[in-house]
Amino acid sequence: MANILSRKSVRSYTDQPLSEEQVTTMLKAAMAAPTGSNIQPWHFVVLTDKSAYDTIFAGNFNMDRFKQSAAVIVMCADTTVTRTPRGGGAPVTVPNGTWRDDLGAATENLLLAAESMGLGAVWTAGYPYKDRYMPVKQALGLPPEVLPYCIVPVGYPAGDEQPKDKWKPERIHYGRW
Amino acid sequence: MANILSRKSVRSYTDQPLSEEQVTTMLKAAMAAPTGSNIQPWHFVVLTDKSAYDTIFAGNFNMDRFKQSAAVIVMCADTTVTRTPRGGGAPVTVPNGTWRDDLGAATENLLLAAESMGLGAVWTAGYPYKDRYMPVKQALGLPPEVLPYCIVPVGYPAGDEQPKDKWKPERIHYGRW
Repeated sequence: MANILSRKSVRSYTDQPLSEEQVTTMLKAAMAAPTGSNIQPWHFVVLTDKSAYDTIFAGNFNMDRFKQSAAVIVMCADTTVTRTPRGGGAPVTVPNGTWRDDLGAATENLLLAAESMGLGAVWTAGYPYKDRYMPVKQALGLPPEVLPYCIVPVGYPAGDEQPKDKWKPERIHYGRW
Repeated sequence: MANILSRKSVRSYTDQPLSEEQVTTMLKAAMAAPTGSNIQPWHFVVLTDKSAYDTIFAGNFNMDRFKQSAAVIVMCADTTVTRTPRGGGAPVTVPNGTWRDDLGAATENLLLAAESMGLGAVWTAGYPYKDRYMPVKQALGLPPEVLPYCIVPVGYPAGDEQPKDKWKPERIHYGRW
């Protein structure tokens, strides 16, 4: 609970780099999220070469944050699922109805893991905003069925951002609305 | 990290009830999630009266789990946002593009909070499956713009479910796909 309540969006970072272990820990957390039918539709692209960011994040108003951060993690989703039909036969590929929910949970796990290590990160949108996710998809060479879900810069916090108090008991309804 | 890695889907429960404090703690965690533009589009309906479940969850194949659990939390989303235009004037109500992501993060926080208290829970789908969320929406009297995002039964675990190991380093790409 302390970890969950202390997580905050951190938007400025020192120039201290991350260790490989820190990145791995965050991705382990992401991959521990629940997914619909246990499909695990995620892929992760880890970026640290800032010289590529003008192309990858062309037009993104979070560019300064990306360039300041030690690493940018692009949370990606395979929007399809390939299954053998119940009756047997050749596998078929169909849309996965819950990849967006799975990636949301995975992103929250990643942010909580960053917080637990004293790192700062912020969830910036990819999907559903085409102008933000299409340049990323093209520059990173994602397969047709894979989309950039969101873009998370991570680093050591430069400032002193505090968590927001968002507790609103009036949003809780008992028995019915 | 220990909390994140030990979270698992728990699908059977003892008949021990939850305290009000346990429910409040889970909802505090949910409301600590990040949301796009800090809109906080969530509402929560807490259910414990099992006699209503045949109506609320009509046709849902998770009915047995709901009835066995101590409480069912329906995670709901306001799919709209009402804003004063930048230039001033009367507030306008428009679709919120990120409520699904926000609710995904909030649900993961709720599941982690349950795990941290030794409780068991499982994320069952509402949206985008109309046959699952429409009976809930109608029975709970949700306003037109509010949808049941997912349905989470919670209770003390009856079995010994273990977390899955979903770590797949091959899902990590460096620099590009």
